[in-house]
Amino acid sequence: MKTLYKNAIILNFIDEKLNVIKDGFLAVDGDTLSYVGDALPEGEFDSVLDMSGKIIMPGIYNCHTHTPMVLLRGVGSDLPLDKWLFDTVFPIEDRLTKEDIEAGSYLALMEMISSGTVSFSDMYFEPEKTAEAVGEAGMKANISRPVQCFDPSERPEDSYRIKQSLELFNNYNNSFDGRVLIDFCIHAEYTCDEKTTRYYSELCKEKQGNMHIHLSETLKEHKECIEKYGKTPAAWFESLGAFSSRAFAAHCVELTEADMDILRNNGVSIVHNPTSNMKLGSGFAPVEEFIKKGINVTIGTDGAASNNNLDMLEEMHLAALIHNGYMKDPTLMSAEKVIKAATVNGAVLQGRKNAGNLLAGYKADFVVLSTDKPNMRPCLDPAALVVYSAGRQDVYMTVCDGKVLYKNGDFLTLDKERIYYNVRKATLRLY
Amino acid sequence: MKTLYKNAIILNFIDEKLNVIKDGFLAVDGDTLSYVGDALPEGEFDSVLDMSGKIIMPGIYNCHTHTPMVLLRGVGSDLPLDKWLFDTVFPIEDRLTKEDIEAGSYLALMEMISSGTVSFSDMYFEPEKTAEAVGEAGMKANISRPVQCFDPSERPEDSYRIKQSLELFNNYNNSFDGRVLIDFCIHAEYTCDEKTTRYYSELCKEKQGNMHIHLSETLKEHKECIEKYGKTPAAWFESLGAFSSRAFAAHCVELTEADMDILRNNGVSIVHNPTSNMKLGSGFAPVEEFIKKGINVTIGTDGAASNNNLDMLEEMHLAALIHNGYMKDPTLMSAEKVIKAATVNGAVLQGRKNAGNLLAGYKADFVVLSTDKPNMRPCLDPAALVVYSAGRQDVYMTVCDGKVLYKNGDFLTLDKERIYYNVRKATLRLY
Repeated sequence: MKTLYKNAIILNFIDEKLNVIKDGFLAVDGDTLSYVGDALPEGEFDSVLDMSGKIIMPGIYNCHTHTPMVLLRGVGSDLPLDKWLFDTVFPIEDRLTKEDIEAGSYLALMEMISSGTVSFSDMYFEPEKTAEAVGEAGMKANISRPVQCFDPSERPEDSYRIKQSLELFNNYNNSFDGRVLIDFCIHAEYTCDEKTTRYYSELCKEKQGNMHIHLSETLKEHKECIEKYGKTPAAWFESLGAFSSRAFAAHCVELTEADMDILRNNGVSIVHNPTSNMKLGSGFAPVEEFIKKGINVTIGTDGAASNNNLDMLEEMHLAALIHNGYMKDPTLMSAEKVIKAATVNGAVLQGRKNAGNLLAGYKADFVVLSTDKPNMRPCLDPAALVVYSAGRQDVYMTVCDGKVLYKNGDFLTLDKERIYYNVRKATLRLY
Repeated sequence: MKTLYKNAIILNFIDEKLNVIKDGFLAVDGDTLSYVGDALPEGEFDSVLDMSGKIIMPGIYNCHTHTPMVLLRGVGSDLPLDKWLFDTVFPIEDRLTKEDIEAGSYLALMEMISSGTVSFSDMYFEPEKTAEAVGEAGMKANISRPVQCFDPSERPEDSYRIKQSLELFNNYNNSFDGRVLIDFCIHAEYTCDEKTTRYYSELCKEKQGNMHIHLSETLKEHKECIEKYGKTPAAWFESLGAFSSRAFAAHCVELTEADMDILRNNGVSIVHNPTSNMKLGSGFAPVEEFIKKGINVTIGTDGAASNNNLDMLEEMHLAALIHNGYMKDPTLMSAEKVIKAATVNGAVLQGRKNAGNLLAGYKADFVVLSTDKPNMRPCLDPAALVVYSAGRQDVYMTVCDGKVLYKNGDFLTLDKERIYYNVRKATLRLY
């Protein structure tokens, strides 16, 4: 199947720089881009789509989320952190069944697909349900089962969490034509111990896996780690081998300069979660310093319980705004930096080759934005328009591996009515 | 014309507290609400609309904007403030014709109506064009022509800006069934002088007008005023009589505690502009302190040149998030405070009686939000959903004075094609 998208404004990155093709052509052959440029490509096409007045950008990567938590959307909003977590989130999570996780995963995928996300990095329980949903939806995801250890006497070899993580890896890594990858995951320093972290990090290295962690999200966590171990969470993870594989760390609000050096030297990517960090009162991650250090910075929504949505266009918007406000400098972040963080850098974090950009030979993962709504007019600077003016209502198509997942309000791979029915059933039981 | 909206989730304020009616009825008689509650109201209706699964909230007030600046959307994004203002914004503004202002006003109204805004407070040139557009669109607005003085020898009696402001007041105040009100406006301390401010403030008091100003937006402005006059901008305006009328001040990023007392004691409302203050690197206004002081706090988008959209749902979202992040306290702002700021408090700022809330006898100004999109499911806490999860794509209807201005993507009072044509014409000429 060969498809030509013609007459579009195309945004891609050439030599790390944002490039705008004003009247562009994008050709898809199967799951791959065969041409991206300003000339009509040669050859026959099964389908030619006129994209006049539309912007095509690389598909968006949501690099840190907990998809099934959409079922907790709005629960305990505006409460102090402890009350929110211990009195609302944890008791509800304890009641979640496999069916709930499945229902929540599907709802989350609908939300992400309809807001331009093609791939995400997930951390949650019963991840097989999420993996199967991703397979059906046609998206991509790096999925993980978080490892924790609350019993100091538990031998890592006996940890059911590690067993489940390995089982997930063995059953689902590189499944659904490589769309689903399985990551390793240590939940956080404060929910794990040294022996478990060391053992599991070694396993991750053996399997050449990616390691997904929460890192220095709050000042409390950061300080208590130093009190307990005499080192920061970043130094603690490094000392136990967690960074000897490809790794990525979410939040990173409280990193020290030395922590940033540790991450950079180990090639650890950072996931910036602006909404969640503000909503829970954690603060602002020093993203402009991460970028200056040469760390690969990406963006994520975190779970819907602390966001309360999975809209990456909104997250990109916030990533562009808040640092300029916090540092009182309007030039710190830019539309270019933010689009790169949400696309090119996301593919690097997930370890996906030839992905995250719109170039011939790359995977055909892209978003088409309409400029038909008043907030998208006039179209003077398409990149600024995407970051500062666009919203999920402007997403016209989401395409992953060449397959159209969403078009003009319709979900082409998912059954909306069935999903809403299951979410309603889960909600009535849970609340 | 009597219309009944039934089976909706209705949000209103009773004794300043948010009230949620789970299965509510809202009856409209002409331009007024005749019933809001959980019982089926008596009487005959010309039309009964089933609002099952929908949320009805008071119409939103955008309390500080410069509508025609949508024509500058995205221009000079990410530049330092001086370069943005002097090298891009001002030269383009110099080229704006009356026709451009008209085209921009209409585009801005489309954008506001489709994102749930029923009323706005505007400050720009050629305001007759904006007033006429508001009249046609069926919205409400408090419109002003900013007064400045750059020539110290100019007598206030001779100021063409003051003359235009008065002419506007005489011709348009209380026009279009009271939907259009005309405000007085001193652009800012740094663009005016003492004699002009004193003279014009006296006029405002005489005419019982509202006074709209920019106040302490940046540290530079705030400091330079103290250097020049030995007092803060708030003290300067007070000393010249600008607060002896009903007044409201936009931005207020740099207010001192004494400034807040001045505003509170004079009943001056504040307009919080989170996006613009971040985007231009101005900083975070201490909104939680304003609220504690008992100041009437409202929300505005500012112009699209520094936002770059006019979406109040996004602005409400930011107002709820950023202060919790900045102060590291998740309980500071809440969905309730933010919805009140954007509705009830906006009507107070504009001096509109029986408006800004959903109660019998109030003006029938409201927004209907759909919960059909995945980001609106499950609907556990409707207020949290509005502030943290909703976006403009969830706006199903916008109703002002009982008249439906927007429904399910269609503009019922404005000619979209004509407006887009005129915007395109203006853009081609300007750039």
